[in-house]
Amino acid sequence: MLRTHTCGELTLTNVSQAVTLCGWVHRTREMGGLTFIDLRDRYGITQLVFNSDLDKVLGEKAKKLGREYVIQVTGKVVERSNKNLKIPTGEIEIMAAVLEVLNPSKVPPFTLEDDTDGGDELRMKYRYLDLRRNMVKNNLLNRHKVARAVREYLDGQGFADIETPFLIKSTPEGARDFVVPSRVNKGEFYALPQSPQTFKQLLMVSGFDRYYQIVRCFRDEDLRADRQPEFTQIDCEMAFVEQEDVLQMFEGMVKHVFQKVRNIELGTLPRMTYADALKYYGNDKPDMRFGMLLHDLTGVVKGNGFKVLDDAEYAGAIAVPGAAEYTRKQTDELTEFVKRPQIGAKGLIYVKCLADGTFKSSVDKFYTEEDLKIWAEAAEAKAGDLILLVSGELTVARRALSELRLEMGDRLGLRNKDVYKPLWVLDFPLLEKDKDSGGWMACHHPFTSWKSEDEQYFETAPGKIRANAYDFVLNGVELSSGSIRIHDRKKQEKMFAAIGLTKEETETKFSFILNAFEYGAPPHGGVAFGFDRFCSMIVSGQENIRDFIAFPKNNAGRDTMIDTPSSISDAQLKELGIGIEHH
Amino acid sequence: MLRTHTCGELTLTNVSQAVTLCGWVHRTREMGGLTFIDLRDRYGITQLVFNSDLDKVLGEKAKKLGREYVIQVTGKVVERSNKNLKIPTGEIEIMAAVLEVLNPSKVPPFTLEDDTDGGDELRMKYRYLDLRRNMVKNNLLNRHKVARAVREYLDGQGFADIETPFLIKSTPEGARDFVVPSRVNKGEFYALPQSPQTFKQLLMVSGFDRYYQIVRCFRDEDLRADRQPEFTQIDCEMAFVEQEDVLQMFEGMVKHVFQKVRNIELGTLPRMTYADALKYYGNDKPDMRFGMLLHDLTGVVKGNGFKVLDDAEYAGAIAVPGAAEYTRKQTDELTEFVKRPQIGAKGLIYVKCLADGTFKSSVDKFYTEEDLKIWAEAAEAKAGDLILLVSGELTVARRALSELRLEMGDRLGLRNKDVYKPLWVLDFPLLEKDKDSGGWMACHHPFTSWKSEDEQYFETAPGKIRANAYDFVLNGVELSSGSIRIHDRKKQEKMFAAIGLTKEETETKFSFILNAFEYGAPPHGGVAFGFDRFCSMIVSGQENIRDFIAFPKNNAGRDTMIDTPSSISDAQLKELGIGIEHH
Repeated sequence: MLRTHTCGELTLTNVSQAVTLCGWVHRTREMGGLTFIDLRDRYGITQLVFNSDLDKVLGEKAKKLGREYVIQVTGKVVERSNKNLKIPTGEIEIMAAVLEVLNPSKVPPFTLEDDTDGGDELRMKYRYLDLRRNMVKNNLLNRHKVARAVREYLDGQGFADIETPFLIKSTPEGARDFVVPSRVNKGEFYALPQSPQTFKQLLMVSGFDRYYQIVRCFRDEDLRADRQPEFTQIDCEMAFVEQEDVLQMFEGMVKHVFQKVRNIELGTLPRMTYADALKYYGNDKPDMRFGMLLHDLTGVVKGNGFKVLDDAEYAGAIAVPGAAEYTRKQTDELTEFVKRPQIGAKGLIYVKCLADGTFKSSVDKFYTEEDLKIWAEAAEAKAGDLILLVSGELTVARRALSELRLEMGDRLGLRNKDVYKPLWVLDFPLLEKDKDSGGWMACHHPFTSWKSEDEQYFETAPGKIRANAYDFVLNGVELSSGSIRIHDRKKQEKMFAAIGLTKEETETKFSFILNAFEYGAPPHGGVAFGFDRFCSMIVSGQENIRDFIAFPKNNAGRDTMIDTPSSISDAQLKELGIGIEHH
Repeated sequence: MLRTHTCGELTLTNVSQAVTLCGWVHRTREMGGLTFIDLRDRYGITQLVFNSDLDKVLGEKAKKLGREYVIQVTGKVVERSNKNLKIPTGEIEIMAAVLEVLNPSKVPPFTLEDDTDGGDELRMKYRYLDLRRNMVKNNLLNRHKVARAVREYLDGQGFADIETPFLIKSTPEGARDFVVPSRVNKGEFYALPQSPQTFKQLLMVSGFDRYYQIVRCFRDEDLRADRQPEFTQIDCEMAFVEQEDVLQMFEGMVKHVFQKVRNIELGTLPRMTYADALKYYGNDKPDMRFGMLLHDLTGVVKGNGFKVLDDAEYAGAIAVPGAAEYTRKQTDELTEFVKRPQIGAKGLIYVKCLADGTFKSSVDKFYTEEDLKIWAEAAEAKAGDLILLVSGELTVARRALSELRLEMGDRLGLRNKDVYKPLWVLDFPLLEKDKDSGGWMACHHPFTSWKSEDEQYFETAPGKIRANAYDFVLNGVELSSGSIRIHDRKKQEKMFAAIGLTKEETETKFSFILNAFEYGAPPHGGVAFGFDRFCSMIVSGQENIRDFIAFPKNNAGRDTMIDTPSSISDAQLKELGIGIEHH
């Protein structure tokens, strides 16, 4: 070992010991004949002192050290006169006697502080330096803590960690697959898994009973800020269970992790149906840290000759507490907010519930004080509140109200990242309309079972079939999705047919799992947590996935540090039996 | 939960409780009006009793159950009159009162016993059924145990589990890469990692100090029986260490795992240089469970006019204990053995050391009793031993003697799979000649450092440079390879040049790591264990990797269960900008 101690462990109890430390030169200060160096390693910072009056050669050598030089120093631990009680090692320093430069360093292209001067692009190109910053380093160490807590819980519950293959088969009914050309079987391809879904179900058929894996998954999607082409999942499955068992098991897991990593007790998780989530929050992942629920005013706003509302499929409102004094500029801003293309509302109606019990609205022309009082009651608005109403097509108006609610929550400081409000959302629909093709597609995935009482709707109204599917939602972020699966061949075939797969496609792509269901498949269900997001939310209370991945890709799916994807040689292409085609 | 208990937990303490069990019908026996069913789940087997005299309908239903039906049974725990003390639940049985068929099963295509009647191909196609067999199931559960013990140790030693990317860059200097076409960046490719080597080194540059990962790796090699295109590695790296630190750390890990999983104390591991391993065992992964060392007889066999030996670069021998009475047929067999093309020796000379102190050899024509006595002394052969001598080109003859030694070890029962003899092999060469190109290539990988005292040989005799590289060997099987790495840009460039990379290739492929070495790279080193093999050796004492992988590929790299690799659609190809080319 090139050191006797790390830079994070020496305290007053070590005074007068001879020690050897290794690390990076974090900061240098000179005071007269003394050179002070903050030596940094993964574990902390220890102050080194070089005294030129005692050893001129050593002192000169120390003065020449640049930022991020890697050095090895031997010296004696002494008590500091000028203590720094903010760090564990702040009561001591090392009187350096021997200094060895293990490796010099060029000047880093940005400062390695929490508040760095390096832009995103630069830091990604030099990610190995960015990872030296305390915040990023701690994120990754905490990610490991989260993984340990997850394993601890699942191991304790008898889950078996079983690895599933990465070179599998392309099943293009979901998102786009990444594929891998086979050299041995030319013209054929493997696909990288979007998730180990079918394999974990086969493990249930095999009788493994409880399975988990913290596993990499791949989706070739058009990237957004918070998406990565490769991401990690806590993938779990259980046999002989009903929905309630799965909910309790993984509620337990999340509580355990919060307790272990953050020392936070989550309490019992509330539950809400998908229908209620949409009704009261306008979306299927409600942020429960604040109220400001959606109220359906469709019934009370009609019949006053205001065509916009008279013709609306839906009119909903939220009551923003204490915002009655908003200025025209502010309400205009909110109107612009809901009219942005990504939200798509036609406009915004407001009603100010003034302190004196009167109302002032943007639709005073059509509605009397008495009318607006009824609105206020329906919206549960008190004096001093601002009612914001959006109308139009149900799904569009609800989405707009949901966005507006979150925006107002932000403005009013109701979305504190240190407050955690989890919940289960239940009874998701089984099928939804594909906007492009007009056909039905699986909301969750095609292995999800449905409520037997909704079986009737397969013929008449597939959109009404409720799935045995559930999401774990935390502060408005979906952290996991799961379902009780189909374990019967006929039902699975019915589902495949419902989403428009032909018998032939079903056979080519899924015969292995259909066959497996005929050899004693037990009832089973499970869940998958997005691990990157899970870590990010638990550790930082925010959704910043890239800060929790050691070597992330940028929004174009590129790793700029290693410069990939990149071209490969003609020899490689030839060996694989493929060619580049420019269509 | 569909059950109150598992099939592995009920004992006499549960007698007279009402319980519900779920599982698979393993065996059925009928005796008069009674039907006995062995109900199986992951945890064990519990006997169910259906009494037709008490409940005719239930009894009839039970009789119709086929093998591998999934059922749910409610009944009372009763003490068995005919106890089976071989299983933990063998003192009780369940008097069934309610029977529900959760899922019927077709008759499995092979028996699900340890000693199955299913051939390899059939079992792979129905791997989900093969996994129900006790042996395979236990292998995977034990694999998880090994992983837990590994994590427990490394977590305890402060190693951080950090995930590295799977979509990386093709660096064709090693084995062949699997590549992944990029849709977003058409004409460009990712590569799947052969190992996270460069990333773990970058993590050391970042200051993570101690890193590990149990991680999937990929190599597109021509497959052999014991190779898989995807395999799992325990990948580790440490900073500020010397070789001795790495050896001690991972010796500790292996001991911990053996202790935890098998309750075996390994003791201190012996060490041997690569040179000695070749000299005394003929290969670099000696099986230490038995002696029968190679002896160099080159100096004593020459000058008697026997041209074969007079001209030989090398003549080596092993003394097989107690085999002096081998028949002509047996020695002929051994001669054929070493002459097989994969071994390639020209022939085999034997000397029988008879009980009366005389000798009988296949070269009596050329050598006197006195000569053979000298041979016997040189080979450390005692009366009753059989000396086997192979001569010729040094590497070929040593390889033949190594194979012969292992064969004789097998024949004499000296390779007991329950005896574990690990060792470290040290001082591997840095470079070896590539048979095809004639150039030098890295023995371990091009990031391995070398002994400074051998620096001189770069110009004169690259093959003589010893690397700071080490292998962990167990019973003749290499379980891990590791090295102290280069952390200096100039040295790394020297190494790349030595293996024939041009400056341009170096720049295109490895500029990121060369640059990283200029920003304060600490001295570091590490190791990677082949996890599949590690589990197989620890759990079964044998090298049968496929039995420790849930869904392995066959020797053609194919998963016959899901039938992959397979063709993908023209639309997919078009979207990826690639085409199939038939050269």
